[in-house]
Parts: sequence; C-alpha cells; structure tokens
Amino acid sequence: MKTAENIRVFALGGVGEIGKNMYVIEIDEDIFIIDAGIMFPDEEMFGIDLVLPDITYLVENKERVKGLFLTHGHEDHIGGVPYLIQQVQVPIYGTKLTLGLVEDKLSQVGVLSKANLQVIDADSIMMFDKASVSFFKTTHSIPDSVGVSIHTSQGALVCTGDFKFDQTPIDDQDADLYKMATLGKEGVLCLLSDSTNAEKQGFTKSERIVGAEIQKVFAKAEGRVIVASFASNIHRLQQVLDAAYLHNRKVAIVGRSMVRVIDIAQTLGYLRIPDDLLISIMDVDHYPERDITILSTGSQGEPLAALSRMAKGMHKQVTIKKGDTVIISATPIPGNELSIAKTVNLLCRSGADVIYGRNNIHVSGHGCQEELKLMIQLMKPAYLLPVHGEYRMQKAHAKLAEEMGMESDRIVVLDKGESIEFTNKVGKRGPKIHTGNMLIDGAGVGDIGAIVLRDRKLLSQHGIFIVIVTLSKEKKCIVAGPEIISRGFVYVREAEEMMNHAAKLVRETIEQSLGENQRDWGTLKGNVRDVLYQYLFEQTKRKPMILPIFMEV
Amino acid sequence: MKTAENIRVFALGGVGEIGKNMYVIEIDEDIFIIDAGIMFPDEEMFGIDLVLPDITYLVENKERVKGLFLTHGHEDHIGGVPYLIQQVQVPIYGTKLTLGLVEDKLSQVGVLSKANLQVIDADSIMMFDKASVSFFKTTHSIPDSVGVSIHTSQGALVCTGDFKFDQTPIDDQDADLYKMATLGKEGVLCLLSDSTNAEKQGFTKSERIVGAEIQKVFAKAEGRVIVASFASNIHRLQQVLDAAYLHNRKVAIVGRSMVRVIDIAQTLGYLRIPDDLLISIMDVDHYPERDITILSTGSQGEPLAALSRMAKGMHKQVTIKKGDTVIISATPIPGNELSIAKTVNLLCRSGADVIYGRNNIHVSGHGCQEELKLMIQLMKPAYLLPVHGEYRMQKAHAKLAEEMGMESDRIVVLDKGESIEFTNKVGKRGPKIHTGNMLIDGAGVGDIGAIVLRDRKLLSQHGIFIVIVTLSKEKKCIVAGPEIISRGFVYVREAEEMMNHAAKLVRETIEQSLGENQRDWGTLKGNVRDVLYQYLFEQTKRKPMILPIFMEV
Repeated sequence: MKTAENIRVFALGGVGEIGKNMYVIEIDEDIFIIDAGIMFPDEEMFGIDLVLPDITYLVENKERVKGLFLTHGHEDHIGGVPYLIQQVQVPIYGTKLTLGLVEDKLSQVGVLSKANLQVIDADSIMMFDKASVSFFKTTHSIPDSVGVSIHTSQGALVCTGDFKFDQTPIDDQDADLYKMATLGKEGVLCLLSDSTNAEKQGFTKSERIVGAEIQKVFAKAEGRVIVASFASNIHRLQQVLDAAYLHNRKVAIVGRSMVRVIDIAQTLGYLRIPDDLLISIMDVDHYPERDITILSTGSQGEPLAALSRMAKGMHKQVTIKKGDTVIISATPIPGNELSIAKTVNLLCRSGADVIYGRNNIHVSGHGCQEELKLMIQLMKPAYLLPVHGEYRMQKAHAKLAEEMGMESDRIVVLDKGESIEFTNKVGKRGPKIHTGNMLIDGAGVGDIGAIVLRDRKLLSQHGIFIVIVTLSKEKKCIVAGPEIISRGFVYVREAEEMMNHAAKLVRETIEQSLGENQRDWGTLKGNVRDVLYQYLFEQTKRKPMILPIFMEV
Repeated sequence: MKTAENIRVFALGGVGEIGKNMYVIEIDEDIFIIDAGIMFPDEEMFGIDLVLPDITYLVENKERVKGLFLTHGHEDHIGGVPYLIQQVQVPIYGTKLTLGLVEDKLSQVGVLSKANLQVIDADSIMMFDKASVSFFKTTHSIPDSVGVSIHTSQGALVCTGDFKFDQTPIDDQDADLYKMATLGKEGVLCLLSDSTNAEKQGFTKSERIVGAEIQKVFAKAEGRVIVASFASNIHRLQQVLDAAYLHNRKVAIVGRSMVRVIDIAQTLGYLRIPDDLLISIMDVDHYPERDITILSTGSQGEPLAALSRMAKGMHKQVTIKKGDTVIISATPIPGNELSIAKTVNLLCRSGADVIYGRNNIHVSGHGCQEELKLMIQLMKPAYLLPVHGEYRMQKAHAKLAEEMGMESDRIVVLDKGESIEFTNKVGKRGPKIHTGNMLIDGAGVGDIGAIVLRDRKLLSQHGIFIVIVTLSKEKKCIVAGPEIISRGFVYVREAEEMMNHAAKLVRETIEQSLGENQRDWGTLKGNVRDVLYQYLFEQTKRKPMILPIFMEV
C-alpha cells in the first residue's frame, strides 16, 4: 500500500442534522464515499417530498470517486443512491440485504442498469491504490449492518455506521468486538461515530425485550392484533411473526413498503417465515378474530399510511373496531408527535385497545452514552468525529470523549462541508467544501430553492390577494378591472365591502399615477402593492401575498 | 334552595382536545359556565393565531347565563374571556390572581369596562335560585387555583379544574382534602375531572423537586444563568428567584408576557421578590457574569420569543455565549418538539451549556393516574365525566374509574356538544348542542373556515399557477395574454419552456372553445384548468392551485 500523504474527511450530510448521511474520505487523489441517504423535510419545507445532500463537489470530481460504501439499508443511508448514480458512476459496496434494498429502490426509479453493485460481507477486503477497505459487524435495528474501515499508511479511518451494542441480537449476529478491538490496537487515526443518542444516559435495551413485550400483548389479546412498525426494522418484524406463530395466529401484511421489505428480506434469507403463516389481507375476514395479526405501516401516524387509514375507515380491507388490539411499536421521530397522537385518538375512538409509548414496546437502534464510550474505548481513535446527529448530539458525544480523557483538540465537531485534513497523522482544519440541501418536489430535483419555499410559507399564512387591471397603452387609462381575486385570505362572501373598497383604492392609485405620467409598470405595481398592504393590514391585521397584475391592450 | 328538576352538562371546548376549556352546567333555566379558554392552532390551521369555542349556544341563551366561574389563570381557561364578554354579559367569578390576569387581558383588548369581575376565595359561597356555588383549593402549576362545586337538590356537580396532588406546594397553599372529602360524603352527582395525564402511571412529582434541581444548577454555574419557563408558572418563577437570591445573583426579566405576569403576581402578593433582586435587562452587562440570572420566555422554542432570539443573536440586549448556562424548565407541548430542538441546537452552537429534558428540571401541573384515582376516591361521584383531554386521555381516565369499581354506564366520555341530563339523580344522554371552532386570524374572529384553510394548505404545498387572458366580448377572441404568473410552484427562471408551452396550451384550449361557440366563462375556465392540471402534473408531478382569470373588454 502506497503512502497516503494527505487525507481529508468531511460530511456532505448527516452532521448538524439527522438524515441524508454522506461522508467523504479522500486519500490523496482517491475519493471514498460512505453512505448516500435522504432526509425527510422539516416543517418549513412546504410541499417538499425529500431532501438530498448537494453533491456538486462529487460531480465535479467524479473521476476521482473510487467507491460508495453502504453501512446498512435505512433510508437515511441508501435513499440517495438513485440520485447519486445518475450523476456519478461509482461501484457500490454493501452487504446482501443492504444491496437487496438498494436494488429494489433503483429498479423502481428505472436506473438499475446503471448501477455497479458489489455484495460484500464482514470479511471482505477491497484493495485500492493507497487504501484498503474492510468491514466489521455491528448491531442495529436492521440486519446486515456493518462499520467501514479505510486502512491507510496513516492508520485506519473508521466509520461505525449506526450502531448499538445489543448483546442478545435477534438474528444471533453479534457485533464483532474482536475486530473492533483489533482496529483499535492497530491504530485508528480517525473515528466517525453515531451521535444519535449521545444525550441519553445508560445503555439502550436489547431488541429482545420488545419481543417479550409483544408476546405478553399477544397472550392477552382476545380479538385481532394489529402491529404498526417501521418496515425496515426487520428484527422487529421477525419478533412479531414469531409471536403470531406461537399464538396460532395468521399474519396479513399491509402497506406497500412493508410488503416489499418483507418480500426482499424473506427472499434473501433475513426473515424466517413458517409456511402458511402469511395470508392475504383480502382473506382477513375469513378467519376468527383471535386468529388474526395484521402487520402494518403507519407507525408515525402518517395520514396516508395504512394504520391511519384503517383507523379512519378509509382502508379498503380493514377497519379498526372494538375488540382490536393495536400496538404501535415505534416512538415518534421528532416532529411526528401530533400525527401519532391524532392516529391514537382515532384508534381509540374506533374502540381499539391501543398500546404505545410504553417502555418496552419499542427500543432504539442507536446506542446511548455507555455504548458510545465503549466504542471509543474499543477503537482508541487518535481523532474523534461525532457524526450522525444534530449539533447538540455531536456536542454531547464530544463531551463523553472528553470525560474519557481525549484531548479536546482531537475531538472535532464538524458541520456540513467543514473538513479535517491529516498529514503524518496530525489533523488540522481543511478547506470548506461546497454543500447544501437539494430539495425534491414531485419530479423536480433541486429546482425548489429559498424563494419558492418563502413564497409557499407566505401563502400558507394568509393566502394571496390578486388584483388584475387591463390598461390601454395608447389611451393611458384603465380599460377593464380592477378585478379582485383572493384565495386563502378571507371568506370572500363576508368581505365584499372590503374587496370593493380595495378595488376602489387600486383604481385611484393607478389613475393618479397615470395622471402624473407614471408609465413604469414596475413602479405602478409597487404603489398598488403598498396601498393594498396598508389597507388590508388595517382591516384584517393579516398580510396576504399581494399580486398586482397588469394586462396591456 | 328550590328543586332542580333538570340538570344538563356539556362541554363547548376542552374535550376531545387539550385547550379552550368551556364547560356548561344548566340547572333548569339557569346556565353556569366554567372556564373560557383559548386553544393554540394545530399544524393544519395555517395562518391561524388562536382558536376559540363556538359560543353560539350561549349567545342565543344569554339571558339565562348566571355566571362564569374561572378555575385558574392559564390561557386555556381564561384566554377566551375577552371574546365571551363582548357577546354575553355575565358576572365573572375568580380568585384574586386569576382575575388579576383576566383584568390585564381585558384592558389590553380595551373591554375592561364591560366586565363585571367578582373576586372570590376558597371559602366564598354564591347563592342562586336553584343552586349555590362553592370552591375548594387545588394545587396546580399556577397559584390560586380552585375547583368549582355547584350544589343542587340533586347533589353537587363538581369541576376539579386542573389539578395534581402536590403535598409540598411552594406557596404552602395545600389542596383542601377535607373539603373534597366532605363533598364526597354529602353527595357528588357528577364529577368533571382533569384527564391530561390519565395515561401516565404513578404520581406527578412535587414542584419543590424542581426547585432543588435548579439550586444544583445554580451552585455549579460559573457564568450567567438563563432560565426559560412558562410565564404563568408562578411557582416556578418563585423558585428561580429564590435560587438566584440564595446564590447572590441579580435577576433580569425578559419577554413581554414574563414581565407582565411577574408584575401582576408581585403586585397582588403572589410572588415574594426581595428588594434589589431585580435589575433591568439593560443593565445586565454592568455586572460580572456570575452575578447574573436572566428569566426568560421561549421555553417552547417559539422563534419569536426571547430565548430563541437570544440564541440567534437577534435580541437587543442579550446574546447567548460560551460560559452561559441555559435551563429550559419545561417539556415540549406536543407539536413543539422541533422548535425546542432547533432552539437547543442554536444555544449549543452559541457555546452555552444547555440543561433540558432532564427528569427534575420540570414537573407537570397535572396529576397522573394515582392522583386521578385519589380524586375519584375523595369525591365518590355518582357519575364521572373525564374532561380536559384528548379522547385517548378521557378513555384512559374512564378506565381508571372502572378499575375502581364504578359502573361503566356512570362513566361518560363526552365529545364537544354532547350532553348528559340528570333528573332525580339519574343521568341519560341529552341533546347535541351546536359547537365548533372559531378561528382567530389577525383581527378576524370566526371568518376563516374550512375553505380558506383548505386553500392555504393547497397553496403551501405547491403554490399557485395563474393564467390571465383578456377576451373581447364582441370579437370573441383573445385580445391579450395568456399571461402566466406563478408563485411557490417552480423556480421560474428554469421553467421558461414549460411556462411557454402552458401558455400555448391555454391559448389553444380557449380558441377551440370559442370556435365551438362556448361562451360560458365558467366552462371555459374549467377546460383551461383541466388542461393545465394535466400538463403541469405530467411535467412536474406537482399540483399547484390553478387559477384561470378572464378579463373582458
């Protein structure tokens, strides 16, 4: 392996936020990417479907990109792959399940043929010019998760991926502590570690605890049992299927993503499903209620997902009713609390017994403070980069490392685009790399920016107030209008007087300006806007978007 | 006291929701109202400032209304008073602090002169024709809270107001267990009780615990201490002031509502503030940092409140910096999680040490399951109406009562407007009373309805696409346009081609229709809308509001 003179590390996403993880490690001329995720929009991103990292830097340097390494199959780590590979041709390395999920995603978008997918496992080693890449098993809320290790002459750069230390994993695939400790022994230059639960004390409970809790519920339930869970949490699905089987219940799967993930996982051998366990959702009514389990999407109260529709009586096959037991086996992702509350209320009104929020009905897939410290202890990195978290989580993670005795100048909290460079195993701040958010709305990728979002926000507050006037160029007067149209501003029928007065004000303003020989339509519109803004605010204390439109004949 | 033949109980707000509490108890011809609150808008109520209960029923029966009884001074119990009294003249009964806060509210809106405020205390008794009204002390997160008891020939109708059982209240004003037990002994026909924490096991901790925790933080902090809290939680404010005093720190108050509440509470004797403890926010920089405490609004991460602005460097007097300790002494009201997270991240970035979410830095003002059961045990009601909660909370409260042995047909979960009527101490369902939401937006009360909200929601998703055409009546052709204007839809500069094609489609559609002698503008607009909807969705997969406007010359 040749000497790596200059190593640069930065994040295009996944720091200062939860979501769209994309970490970049440059070994001199070679670029390695770890993960390519998406992020769900926050409340200010009106109408936006998804958010991607801005990959301009990678596109500009695409010939240098040697590989994309995926740690596991969650959306915030693989959701961006279809978009990335349309602009940057790169071999994609991932475990069997991870690539199975990626393949499905790529074929849905129709770009599977463009992809160069290379299945690896925890023992694989990839050789490159100045680096070799190896992997190590971790435990997380999806099977087949690995950490990635890039070995160079300056030491190893290790990215943990998402992890917890689950000592009793459902699939018996233990985290490889020996490999982690060996990496630490041999020298980890830089560790990028999962900060999600860095503010939480203690240890995260094992996934098995949830299985036991689910069993208890199944044991008591007399009617149907409906379980809502994240489709990707295959460990959780296995435990639900196991509980159903043990209690002689059939299982019907509901929700497109749930159906798809179960299909992929079962095909690839990651879900053990006894023959005859699954039935079609169409056949649910053919069985006694106590023999039914329904496994469903919608654990975040998403209004269009199966659970919510079943609660509202809007689902074709299933309507929640008295006697049903509903388990919401998830906790709210911040921002989803109201959706979940709404769904729970609807479920209660339907007469169901709803189990949610209780201690053991869900556990996190991310390690808490003791596990993060354990990872640092195993890896003994020279430098720590807390990643996969909002700033406050990264900061809390940094504090843990300090408590363990790491020097504060070796603990680097990076924001998106900020880089650290290593030369002769010493790190210092590098240049700022261009980065940002690419917003996806409908079919458009990246065309929605701050202006459109600002307009949508304004429109959402007090609507729009449009005034149209047709003017004659020659005669310099109003030929038709002012016509007033508003949407989302007031209830028009009760506001007639105000609308009429507004029209009158517009007419006067225009006639006065025309009289003063004002012919610049821009200035005229500005005058009209000002007059209306003042009048409408005076009358209503509201600030609709005001749009004067002039037509010339 | 004359015989009460028919007693009717219902809620105009506060059931099936948290907020805008308004309970109505009719004793034959006489109407008694308990509380008049407001509710904050949910995420679907775009642009709305506040929500009130629809009081049409009360307005239509205003001559029958004998009194408004306020249990305590929180917004969701008194916020609606200014609106109520402008339509229904009614004496308002409340404790000194409660009415002090109401008075302030009324004078701000300029309707104080219309109000008939009657200060009561826990020993007061009001006599009416067929009922007498008494009160009993409760403990809550604001001082001077009481329950209300309406005594009739059929027994007492008791409304608890908001309560917990805090055995070590900050102001030494214990809940009156003797009075509650006596009510139970003498016969409570119907109990309306606080369901907020009915899903939570155990007991709510005492407010004093928070004081102890705050003291710990003050003891450790070396720089400034900034505490964000609900302005109305006067017990909490007292403990912050006490801690500051004990640690020889001055206290500056920031945030209009905080300043106002402290002023009222101190004037009326509900806050003990040593002389020289308070300083002006303008003088904060004149003191060493370790001598400073700042008591601030913004504990819910509200972007415009003091804490958030201090974190963003947008506050005139205070900017959060390294060395500051910030205590957020509140938990997120559901829906505010993201705002608080954003503010915490900003505070962290400013270098502050942020304490929030920790167990004892805040306690609820509402009792958990054991306290709700205790109240039932004390009151021994013939009928229980779980109120002050979403459906799931009311249901959980009902379940507790069942576990205690109450018969299920005596536990009545009412929705807004649903009533229960008592004759000879036997309850049965009564008529449905008209009720609903009155939305306040800017200066308008109740003019915003479903249509406007729906439009705002649509606009917030994909904006608006406007096409204006000027047509000649006689010549039956297009004279000017089609002109395309969009807002919040696409980034126009990159969408020129699509806009041009859209204009072309509109022209063709109109010319074709005019050619076929279609003169009904409504139909014509419909055709244009359909063509555009299809084209734009095809191109962008987005669905903006489409607004065809025709001007005639």
